[in-house]
Amino acid sequence: MQFHLNGYEPGDPEISDPAERHDPTGASGNVPQEVDVLIVGCGPAGLTLAAQLSAFPDIKTCIVEQKSGPLLRGQADGIACRTMEMFHAFGFSERVLKEGYWVNETTFWKPDDTQPENIIRSGRVQDVEEGLSEFPHVILNQARVHDFFLEVMRKSPARLKPYYSRRLLDIEPDPASSCVTVRLERLDPAHEGETETVKAHHVVGCDGARSTVRKSIGRALYGDSANHAWGVMDVLAVTDFPDIRLKGLIQSTNQGAIVLIPREGGYLIRIYVELDKLHEDERVANRNITADDLIAATQRVLKPYTFEVKEIAWWSVYEIGQRLCDKFDDVPAEEIGARLPRVFIAGDACHTHSPKAGQGMNVSMQDSFNLGWKLASVLRKRSTPRLLHTYSAERQAIAKELIDFDREWAQMLSASAKSATELNPQEVQTYFVRQGRYTAGTATHYHSSFITGEPAHQHLAKGFVVGTRLHSAPVVRLADAKPVHLGHTLKADGRWRLFAFAGREDPAAANSDVHALCTFLAEAEDSPVKRYTPAGEDIDCVIDVRAVFQQDHRELALEKMPAFLLPQKGRYQLRDYEKVFCADVRGGHDIFTLRGIDRERGCIVVVRPDQYVAHILQLDGHAELARFFDGFMVPGKTDTRGVQMAKTIAVR
Amino acid sequence: MQFHLNGYEPGDPEISDPAERHDPTGASGNVPQEVDVLIVGCGPAGLTLAAQLSAFPDIKTCIVEQKSGPLLRGQADGIACRTMEMFHAFGFSERVLKEGYWVNETTFWKPDDTQPENIIRSGRVQDVEEGLSEFPHVILNQARVHDFFLEVMRKSPARLKPYYSRRLLDIEPDPASSCVTVRLERLDPAHEGETETVKAHHVVGCDGARSTVRKSIGRALYGDSANHAWGVMDVLAVTDFPDIRLKGLIQSTNQGAIVLIPREGGYLIRIYVELDKLHEDERVANRNITADDLIAATQRVLKPYTFEVKEIAWWSVYEIGQRLCDKFDDVPAEEIGARLPRVFIAGDACHTHSPKAGQGMNVSMQDSFNLGWKLASVLRKRSTPRLLHTYSAERQAIAKELIDFDREWAQMLSASAKSATELNPQEVQTYFVRQGRYTAGTATHYHSSFITGEPAHQHLAKGFVVGTRLHSAPVVRLADAKPVHLGHTLKADGRWRLFAFAGREDPAAANSDVHALCTFLAEAEDSPVKRYTPAGEDIDCVIDVRAVFQQDHRELALEKMPAFLLPQKGRYQLRDYEKVFCADVRGGHDIFTLRGIDRERGCIVVVRPDQYVAHILQLDGHAELARFFDGFMVPGKTDTRGVQMAKTIAVR
Repeated sequence: MQFHLNGYEPGDPEISDPAERHDPTGASGNVPQEVDVLIVGCGPAGLTLAAQLSAFPDIKTCIVEQKSGPLLRGQADGIACRTMEMFHAFGFSERVLKEGYWVNETTFWKPDDTQPENIIRSGRVQDVEEGLSEFPHVILNQARVHDFFLEVMRKSPARLKPYYSRRLLDIEPDPASSCVTVRLERLDPAHEGETETVKAHHVVGCDGARSTVRKSIGRALYGDSANHAWGVMDVLAVTDFPDIRLKGLIQSTNQGAIVLIPREGGYLIRIYVELDKLHEDERVANRNITADDLIAATQRVLKPYTFEVKEIAWWSVYEIGQRLCDKFDDVPAEEIGARLPRVFIAGDACHTHSPKAGQGMNVSMQDSFNLGWKLASVLRKRSTPRLLHTYSAERQAIAKELIDFDREWAQMLSASAKSATELNPQEVQTYFVRQGRYTAGTATHYHSSFITGEPAHQHLAKGFVVGTRLHSAPVVRLADAKPVHLGHTLKADGRWRLFAFAGREDPAAANSDVHALCTFLAEAEDSPVKRYTPAGEDIDCVIDVRAVFQQDHRELALEKMPAFLLPQKGRYQLRDYEKVFCADVRGGHDIFTLRGIDRERGCIVVVRPDQYVAHILQLDGHAELARFFDGFMVPGKTDTRGVQMAKTIAVR
Repeated sequence: MQFHLNGYEPGDPEISDPAERHDPTGASGNVPQEVDVLIVGCGPAGLTLAAQLSAFPDIKTCIVEQKSGPLLRGQADGIACRTMEMFHAFGFSERVLKEGYWVNETTFWKPDDTQPENIIRSGRVQDVEEGLSEFPHVILNQARVHDFFLEVMRKSPARLKPYYSRRLLDIEPDPASSCVTVRLERLDPAHEGETETVKAHHVVGCDGARSTVRKSIGRALYGDSANHAWGVMDVLAVTDFPDIRLKGLIQSTNQGAIVLIPREGGYLIRIYVELDKLHEDERVANRNITADDLIAATQRVLKPYTFEVKEIAWWSVYEIGQRLCDKFDDVPAEEIGARLPRVFIAGDACHTHSPKAGQGMNVSMQDSFNLGWKLASVLRKRSTPRLLHTYSAERQAIAKELIDFDREWAQMLSASAKSATELNPQEVQTYFVRQGRYTAGTATHYHSSFITGEPAHQHLAKGFVVGTRLHSAPVVRLADAKPVHLGHTLKADGRWRLFAFAGREDPAAANSDVHALCTFLAEAEDSPVKRYTPAGEDIDCVIDVRAVFQQDHRELALEKMPAFLLPQKGRYQLRDYEKVFCADVRGGHDIFTLRGIDRERGCIVVVRPDQYVAHILQLDGHAELARFFDGFMVPGKTDTRGVQMAKTIAVR
């Protein structure tokens, strides 16, 4: 898709009239007086959480935002492969693929040895290593990502819309309940200054680096002082720089460095350009830096190439600072055993860093994707409330890694901090390649806990590393012979998945391990499926069980499959034919080979609702499987909340 | 995507609330009094044409429909590979891929020799041969296809919406002009019986088998009498028939035949079931056939399998009849040299046939896709008006092939017309496979004419057959190293495309054939690009020139490319970086190998706005290229219509 040729216009580029490209309206009226979850902030973290919770009409969610409407330009733009996998779970990856710029290769430029005032190309690498993800690394305006989440919310069962023009005043514990009371100030002209009060079971602060929610729970960001200024701008420009449509890391001798990010639509470019080092305690705001300064700095770095800016769609100046909060909820470490979190923080409220590694938006969304299913599961009484403690435990560790990575990366790119002779472009390139998995978002590895098993059986599926996201691979769906990605069965619907990878045995044999597992799951008293599926609901509504066989799909007979793998669902008890898969043997490397699955013995792979591998077990490890779920699940027989919430909704 | 589990609901399945899944509103107020094109009928043919014309705000288009709103259920559902290619040109193929059922394999069932009252599987084939198209054969409710076209229209520069509840009364030539006068009767309750009069340069009848437009020009359908009844139904059912999620052709001994089409969403099924042969002059409407009759007939064919219908989303009974109109416009063959067509017919108004080959909707859309760019090109004064004669010439021949194919296919499937011993399932299967290209829609081959050259240079690109649709292949875009399909540059924007496939020469050499071609196109007096591009418009707005090189993209230097391949466009004169491609050498078979392009000499491939190969020429065939375009193009210097129309729109 090509667009922005005649100037940057926000919103959906498929709509011809720019005036109709975005929907500025939020929810009307006052915010509800009582909610389960109040989300503060409509950035990537807030919208990911809202979109996740909007899947559950029995959870009352409210999202508020200080700005008067949706974001239209600027901010983050890098979408890591891992984030694309999550977008697929939310159902809009194909739109990002269509509209976004694909980062296929990255080029490196350095000062020309013979003419050090000029730059020359020093290297060119594939941006993402082969097979790391089925999705590419994509660049798209953060505003469009917001749009897609807002659309998910609008279309969802809960039909969520943000309440704009709300400023958070304070959060106080409610003495009469386990809730908190939140006061909001309306900023919209018609109601300016009016105060709204919301009682919430949980508040999630996705309100950015200066988070009021964070302050309200007495937490702060700790880390380096910010004393290095960078400029960022989205521009339409004419240039003879040949790599203008490739991601580029460009280092000049004395004029600083540039990170060049081609953008969606074929014409727009993002430039990060290094500005002067700040004096101690100096703030970049006091420098009176203008857009012209950014353009001039860019032109100096790009010499001998010309760079003529025709339009600046957005620009900003920021200081690099790597700062981190030590805990992401309101429970002090020493009180974890005593009480449950009521207030959480996510995204920039927990960690700030430079934007150039393209990590900020991605990590923020993964924060709240981690939190969303946990909140939903506890509020719907499907999991023990102590599940909520795992959010800070898991995500704070990841943020720590991010901060460390970003500090190293930012220092490396700050060429002007070094003399020309110290510059080492090869070092930059080597580091870039080595950190590829990290920047792709696929290196995230959660430690063992009661929701992430010990990797005792990791050898049964070496490529599905316990604690990392399920690395998808191609398979063929038995019933309709469709080639699909196994990972694309993982939807953002709060369900657990259990994949049974069959061993070499005859799948039709009634005494096979897969049949035995199905019998256990369908009939045994301690079957987690039986135990945790609420009466009257579909058999796969809590734990979605699927099987993968090694044989070519034409060698298998659907009619010989256990009935448990062809479950009857819904008011008509129709059969679901999408539970059984076969290896895709056409390419030579099927999923068993690609992911190192033991072909003799097979295995069970348990996947969390956020797509992370929770456990690997032997196919006959029935008792261990039961114990794992018993560690945090709550029997589904008394699903009164769902009923009660449904009634509440009907009455509203 | 899974949906319809608890009952069929029309509209967008991604919207949770069924009540909000479709937009029933059309245009409000009266139809315009004067238009360029009046389209009668909102079926696939009418909407394809409306979507095509909606790309041009300088053309005044109006589309009317007798029904009171958009289609919600039933009708056609087969989407051929070729149609998916066209959907990509309209920008919604990814949505059809996501939502539709993919026909991967087809199974064949026949009477069991040992128990002739039962059926057994007799064969299984891949539905579409490998490499025939980059798109699969897809099944999706016609109503959803309508929705996507309506969305294209809404978002388009012309912002078209249908006028519903309009019945065509008559069409009369306007004595004072080259227009016709059309009278419409309003059927909406608030305006019932009111008459509207529209003056139109052209009327296109997409108003179905009983077309009033066709009758108004004194044409009729000729062909076989319909004396064989079939039933069709969309159902939610529970069955133990194992191939229920595969397309199936099922023949019983004495109980007739079934064509089974799995549908989108994982649960819905379409069944075509053979009913009794009608007596001469008997109409199926007189048989009082009920849905229960269809179910009972299906159950009889499927024995020994059970088939319990839980919900019927839609059903109908129809008679097979292959009928064809001898000409698709209002100009008698003997008057072609004397006058121009004012009235056209497309789709079922021109040809009727049985639906089981899945051809009807596809051929109808290709009809009006063929007509759309021609109308636009003539109305915008870019082509000679005699271009309009080629519509009937090209499409009537294709319809004739369709009718012949369908007659043969329908007879073959009418098992009950033969005795059990005459049944030949192998014959059915063999025929099915042989006709694969035909049913995929890729066999369409237009004869030579002034818009389709003689294939004198066909040997330079054996796989781009002149007169057939451009068979896409993977390439890599030079500027951003993105792997793309070359055919996906073909948008439904009315533009011609010229692909220069380079020979083995050094692409950077200033004396290469590609450089010489670019110099000719950019500078020569007789360059079709220079001659037919209106002054002040982008250089690629009439003929979009792109180049494909044999080298790996890392071996080519963008900065050595002719400036003509990096054109500067728009108000800022930004460079368009998407004109140059390289062979995708990773897979072993690049586009030069896949499409049999002469690697020594290269060639020029000219592609029509409807994606058909118009001509193959030598890279240095400049004069021949100029002559080809001179045969039908009109110099662009006097593009007064565009200006005039723009003014009209501004005043409205």
